[in-house]
Amino acid sequence: MSDFFGNIEPIKFEGPDSTNPLAYRYYDANRVVMGKTMQEHLRFAVCYWHTFCWDGADPFGQSTMVRPWIGQSDEMAAARLKAEVAFDMFSLLGVPYFAFHDRDIAPEGATLAESNRNVQAIVDVFEQKIEETGVGLLWGTANIFTNKRFMAGASTNPDPDVFAYSAAQVKNALDATHRLNGQNYVLWGGREGYETLLNTDTKRELDHMGRFLNLVVEYKHKIGFDGTILIEPKPQEPTKHQYDFDVATVYGFLKKYGLENEVKVNIEVGHAVLAGHSFEHEIEMANTLGIFGSIDANRNDYQSGWDTDQFPNNVPEMTLALYYILQGGGFTTGGLNFDSKLRRQSIDPADLLYGHIGGMDTCAKALLCAANMIEEGSLKSLVEDRYAGWNTEAAQAMLSKESSLDKIAERVEREGINPQPKSGRQEYCENLVNRFI
Amino acid sequence: MSDFFGNIEPIKFEGPDSTNPLAYRYYDANRVVMGKTMQEHLRFAVCYWHTFCWDGADPFGQSTMVRPWIGQSDEMAAARLKAEVAFDMFSLLGVPYFAFHDRDIAPEGATLAESNRNVQAIVDVFEQKIEETGVGLLWGTANIFTNKRFMAGASTNPDPDVFAYSAAQVKNALDATHRLNGQNYVLWGGREGYETLLNTDTKRELDHMGRFLNLVVEYKHKIGFDGTILIEPKPQEPTKHQYDFDVATVYGFLKKYGLENEVKVNIEVGHAVLAGHSFEHEIEMANTLGIFGSIDANRNDYQSGWDTDQFPNNVPEMTLALYYILQGGGFTTGGLNFDSKLRRQSIDPADLLYGHIGGMDTCAKALLCAANMIEEGSLKSLVEDRYAGWNTEAAQAMLSKESSLDKIAERVEREGINPQPKSGRQEYCENLVNRFI
Amino acid sequence: MSDFFGNIEPIKFEGPDSTNPLAYRYYDANRVVMGKTMQEHLRFAVCYWHTFCWDGADPFGQSTMVRPWIGQSDEMAAARLKAEVAFDMFSLLGVPYFAFHDRDIAPEGATLAESNRNVQAIVDVFEQKIEETGVGLLWGTANIFTNKRFMAGASTNPDPDVFAYSAAQVKNALDATHRLNGQNYVLWGGREGYETLLNTDTKRELDHMGRFLNLVVEYKHKIGFDGTILIEPKPQEPTKHQYDFDVATVYGFLKKYGLENEVKVNIEVGHAVLAGHSFEHEIEMANTLGIFGSIDANRNDYQSGWDTDQFPNNVPEMTLALYYILQGGGFTTGGLNFDSKLRRQSIDPADLLYGHIGGMDTCAKALLCAANMIEEGSLKSLVEDRYAGWNTEAAQAMLSKESSLDKIAERVEREGINPQPKSGRQEYCENLVNRFI
Amino acid sequence: MSDFFGNIEPIKFEGPDSTNPLAYRYYDANRVVMGKTMQEHLRFAVCYWHTFCWDGADPFGQSTMVRPWIGQSDEMAAARLKAEVAFDMFSLLGVPYFAFHDRDIAPEGATLAESNRNVQAIVDVFEQKIEETGVGLLWGTANIFTNKRFMAGASTNPDPDVFAYSAAQVKNALDATHRLNGQNYVLWGGREGYETLLNTDTKRELDHMGRFLNLVVEYKHKIGFDGTILIEPKPQEPTKHQYDFDVATVYGFLKKYGLENEVKVNIEVGHAVLAGHSFEHEIEMANTLGIFGSIDANRNDYQSGWDTDQFPNNVPEMTLALYYILQGGGFTTGGLNFDSKLRRQSIDPADLLYGHIGGMDTCAKALLCAANMIEEGSLKSLVEDRYAGWNTEAAQAMLSKESSLDKIAERVEREGINPQPKSGRQEYCENLVNRFI
Repeated sequence: MSDFFGNIEPIKFEGPDSTNPLAYRYYDANRVVMGKTMQEHLRFAVCYWHTFCWDGADPFGQSTMVRPWIGQSDEMAAARLKAEVAFDMFSLLGVPYFAFHDRDIAPEGATLAESNRNVQAIVDVFEQKIEETGVGLLWGTANIFTNKRFMAGASTNPDPDVFAYSAAQVKNALDATHRLNGQNYVLWGGREGYETLLNTDTKRELDHMGRFLNLVVEYKHKIGFDGTILIEPKPQEPTKHQYDFDVATVYGFLKKYGLENEVKVNIEVGHAVLAGHSFEHEIEMANTLGIFGSIDANRNDYQSGWDTDQFPNNVPEMTLALYYILQGGGFTTGGLNFDSKLRRQSIDPADLLYGHIGGMDTCAKALLCAANMIEEGSLKSLVEDRYAGWNTEAAQAMLSKESSLDKIAERVEREGINPQPKSGRQEYCENLVNRFI
Repeated sequence: MSDFFGNIEPIKFEGPDSTNPLAYRYYDANRVVMGKTMQEHLRFAVCYWHTFCWDGADPFGQSTMVRPWIGQSDEMAAARLKAEVAFDMFSLLGVPYFAFHDRDIAPEGATLAESNRNVQAIVDVFEQKIEETGVGLLWGTANIFTNKRFMAGASTNPDPDVFAYSAAQVKNALDATHRLNGQNYVLWGGREGYETLLNTDTKRELDHMGRFLNLVVEYKHKIGFDGTILIEPKPQEPTKHQYDFDVATVYGFLKKYGLENEVKVNIEVGHAVLAGHSFEHEIEMANTLGIFGSIDANRNDYQSGWDTDQFPNNVPEMTLALYYILQGGGFTTGGLNFDSKLRRQSIDPADLLYGHIGGMDTCAKALLCAANMIEEGSLKSLVEDRYAGWNTEAAQAMLSKESSLDKIAERVEREGINPQPKSGRQEYCENLVNRFI
Repeated sequence: MSDFFGNIEPIKFEGPDSTNPLAYRYYDANRVVMGKTMQEHLRFAVCYWHTFCWDGADPFGQSTMVRPWIGQSDEMAAARLKAEVAFDMFSLLGVPYFAFHDRDIAPEGATLAESNRNVQAIVDVFEQKIEETGVGLLWGTANIFTNKRFMAGASTNPDPDVFAYSAAQVKNALDATHRLNGQNYVLWGGREGYETLLNTDTKRELDHMGRFLNLVVEYKHKIGFDGTILIEPKPQEPTKHQYDFDVATVYGFLKKYGLENEVKVNIEVGHAVLAGHSFEHEIEMANTLGIFGSIDANRNDYQSGWDTDQFPNNVPEMTLALYYILQGGGFTTGGLNFDSKLRRQSIDPADLLYGHIGGMDTCAKALLCAANMIEEGSLKSLVEDRYAGWNTEAAQAMLSKESSLDKIAERVEREGINPQPKSGRQEYCENLVNRFI
Repeated sequence: MSDFFGNIEPIKFEGPDSTNPLAYRYYDANRVVMGKTMQEHLRFAVCYWHTFCWDGADPFGQSTMVRPWIGQSDEMAAARLKAEVAFDMFSLLGVPYFAFHDRDIAPEGATLAESNRNVQAIVDVFEQKIEETGVGLLWGTANIFTNKRFMAGASTNPDPDVFAYSAAQVKNALDATHRLNGQNYVLWGGREGYETLLNTDTKRELDHMGRFLNLVVEYKHKIGFDGTILIEPKPQEPTKHQYDFDVATVYGFLKKYGLENEVKVNIEVGHAVLAGHSFEHEIEMANTLGIFGSIDANRNDYQSGWDTDQFPNNVPEMTLALYYILQGGGFTTGGLNFDSKLRRQSIDPADLLYGHIGGMDTCAKALLCAANMIEEGSLKSLVEDRYAGWNTEAAQAMLSKESSLDKIAERVEREGINPQPKSGRQEYCENLVNRFI
């Protein structure tokens, strides 16, 4: 074990009354809820990206966090140290999964081939660590947005060589994910969009992005990867406008390129909010459209207009999210990852633990609340009752192929249909939810 | 001619130097631009809704505007007066089109049948007015959001009787539109969404909305209406969340219900902004997805979070919009309507004219600027050059069915592909645009 | 007792496990928390405005709620019925206070004098009701924004007659508030701002508004009213820009016109959010500036850009608010009012009760959480420790009149001051707060 | 001359018809407008910060721009090269002013003393360059936000040593500004605010910030610096909440600490927008409150929630800003600086020129439009007429000390005052403005 976290013992469940800041008050991995353990339900994952790669720099300020693996001259040694600390942390927290971008885990080389070799060397380390610890890979992904070659997009770049380079890099990252038995492979299009429409051919770019995603899916099948391909929607930032704006936009894109049965979404709380939606909206929309995959629990600060990527801390909000996830059948290959960013002033190693502990406890408590809501069933009944009129033959007939506007109009006149409004009972519903929190 | 507007003469084109507030400085209906007259390009329409039906009330204040057709006991006489004034105004302005909701033009009756008769009576008036004046109908629509029976949705209402009632009402409005040789028929789903997810079955609601739209399309074909069916996207307001959030969302919805070749979009400036997009984004996205139909030129105040529906007044912004519309081929059945709302304090009849004159002149000047940009061609060339690399065989091969991630990866390695970034030249492009304004 | 609410019994505290939707689960009026009863801490008030005057109309829809006192021909009889139902509701809920605008309680007459007489007649009713029930008046206010005479402002109107009219109306409302032993008198400047800068003389308008507020304060003293004068900040809506944008803006205004010791703020959750702040920010800023007065607990929907005025339902958020209120010493003349609006679809009388019960329970639970946080004291200690360095003599010397930039600069060089960052521990703090919720 | 810009000739005015991207179409420095040259009116300044120090990195991407003075081992040599290129650029553009942060111009040393020496060495270079070129310093400032020691604030840091360090650094920057005959000295409180209220003592922090600003003002007088001290308001970013939220907030702060006659504001377009205001609002509010100083013309992208710092390109918007600036008397010590950021993809040296040329031309054209509006006078007359009622004795009497609510109320009753609304004519005003653009 590295000495990065000092003498901290593995985080244990101590119950709601514990005042130990390094204990779980709600996350009790093996506690059974609705027939599965909390661990099986929540499928927590820690991410390399913000947890091990962010150093506290922001657009107005330099690095604040001392990370012994950042800024070292022997980059591969640093990458190994980073992996060591990462698995220490997974063990301290007791999470079942982790997740990474290729460039998070290993340094970029002078050529793509060298970069790939660097990735593979760390994947070797991971294989061993996974065997030792039982921690699995929730998803892998390729960072095709940080290097300046991607500044105008990866698959949507005006330069076809960038498309090619991106394809090659994704192939390698997908191979690595497959080798590590990843549950999913994620694509986040941070540069797939535009800074200005003026210089952009959106038709070409969408077609290229559609072809690219098909290439990924075809390759997945070719190599026998049975994880899920996930797109992570985000409306903007870093680009002014990203093509994967939100769940509904991604759905339209998948339909356009024939991929709606192949690709699902990885929904982030903060991205939902930046797109003008609630998190539960995005989840339920994905359920409705049949593309729910996984979630990134990072919330946004409601007063900030950029992606703040904070650990969740509001139980009522997370309860609604988990209610809709559970109603939709829960996670299959997906899980709940934190790709959360400490606040820039949270510079101590322990802050990394506080962030994850707080986030996990928020989700665990929310799971209990959501499960109670489901088991009690009142809210679901209320919704079913509200639509019960649709279960009649006459109602269903309107939805059939045989109906037509004029036939319906005749019936309205004949039967003197004059519908009266019924209370939507929103406040009642909100109070009902609060009973379970 | 009614005396509502007093002694005002028809608004004439007087050129940029005119200081007459009741003259056009740019809109010269018969001026030919890129092979068509301004009138043919812009296809202006005045809308009943905000122009003749809004009385200045807002959520915190009572009516401010004295309209002799509002609040009268003989509602049908008032409706006839309103029609009289409306056509006076179309003539004063010299617009080629108008547009309406069924409930804008005639009072709601005690039954749907009576409401329908009221509508038909005014449609009779319209037929004659259209014949007299040559003004045409850009689009008709049904108001299925104001009456309290629609408070929980029209086609998405939990009560199937509301679905039926809505179908019957739309049938009548579509018949009226057809009879008046309307160029389009619009659906705006102001109540098709939810106030709270808690009481909502989104799957049912989307399926019902999809079936409803199919009913409309089927009926259109049945009666031989050859106008275009248009959906007007809006993210929210009055409901917390509307299903037709934006162009991309509507596209996904159309694909899901097999309607992407039957239905197009009517894009409003202010709705685009409320959804987190620029207006030109929504236009270009509709072009790209093949569903561009028509526009509502109402802008939003950038500091207000609700739909302010103001007349456009910023030429550079409207220039970009018209540039993308022209690049996409211009309007076919669509046009440019103002469903703009005077400010609540603009209580004089003349204010109605100032609003429309200013809006029309803004669009006319923008048309000239956009046409110049297109005829000069530099911006288009710059974009084509930026993507020129894609015109090579190697680039196109990557997009073909035969390509694969691994083949591309091999080529990257073999050829040592290492793409170098090129300037996106955004400021250059912006300056270029400013040359034409 | 009127029959508006049917057979509903007074709402009782039944404890957290109650499943009765018409019971309190947390609000136990006489429970003592930190030395005061819940009732004394929270000082709940029900407001006439949204509770009894709103009928469900919105900018796109007609009235949905049947209220037997709305739309009656005998308006004074209706006003008496409304008062009857209002006091029934105060009794059912067991709230200690209510609040009103003058035009909420009595119809506008043909002249101001008649309007005043109408108000006074209902004030007579209130006097008796107050004596019978023990319910008190938290605040009164004048509605100087709904009538069209105020469309361009009340005290800031370009027409001095509107200033005069507003002054006269406020005099009467303040007299009424005084007569009913109101704890506060509120001014909300819904029309004090502008729709467009183009037609506005902001210097004149601010000076007029400053003089107006001084007139109110002078009159308060003249009549011996010892309640607090409160301004309710709001950034916009109905006007594009209101002068009382937020707490900090109001503070500057009060300083400019010499009123910072005379006037305090009534902070609304939703208004804080619309101004780009968190609710607790506005409370703590008011504490810091010495102008904290009262609160309106109406939250905003985070995805809506207009004032949604919903009942609070998120305990963690309200806990922070109450923590800062208690830390600042709690309410004195102020209280916690709900000027909340049912959702437009919540059309049953019982919905009014559900809304208030849910809101009161949210606040009551939040009070318990906040009190626990304060009594436990960790968060406060953490903050004090963070600033402990400032308790040294050297630190305080820098703040004294004798210090200067050059003396400090000399000391920095002499002592080689080179400060090292310390963790801000945000995640730790957030977890700490969650321990009390 | 350095070879950074290659063979580019000084940018010349070529008139509106020029198609030369490296020429001014509107900025004609010596053209006289309303009695002063364009140069005297606009007082353009180029800023070091984004122009010479930003390298294209963003939170998701690495540096994209090759700047020969970034990343060099001999940092002082690099700083000299940077100064060389900077003055080359000032000369190419023909701007009269520049502006800088201390850390922009010279590297941070191991100690503050060393940092100060580095600054002074470059100030020596500047002195000579200024003498050679005639370019002056619009303002200087200290960067007390980038180094991690400032992560929790400079003057508002919980650690008094950071306050001391900041004071010492500001002293040096103010000395440098004084030595270079700076027209103003700016303070931007990028870290003066909080990430979370939970760990923050806002009362202490505001008091410290107030004392700090007094120290700066006292020192300014002590050394005889007769430039203006400016605060640059910004609502947030990098911190969640900054104390200098907007103009009105800064005004209240200045009043609280007795500085309203000593300190003015430097208003940035984009910051105004992020705070929920229009740019012209902030200017006119500063005029009204008597604290207008200078402007930063960087606009924000309306769809981005963070500070995009783009060059202005919308003439109508900038026209309104300049109209209010001119109406307020124009700049005195202030000026119009661009602290604009190229888009990350604009990586060529020429892009720096395109950005500034476009921004300057936008402002120059806007100046012409605004001057025409003022000289023509219609808008001003319209506003004066709107308030003309206030010029009567009766109206003024209400504003005098002798008036009272009850006297006014008596008069309202006696005279039967019943004000009638008049049109606010917003659309008319907007059309009027468009006549000058």
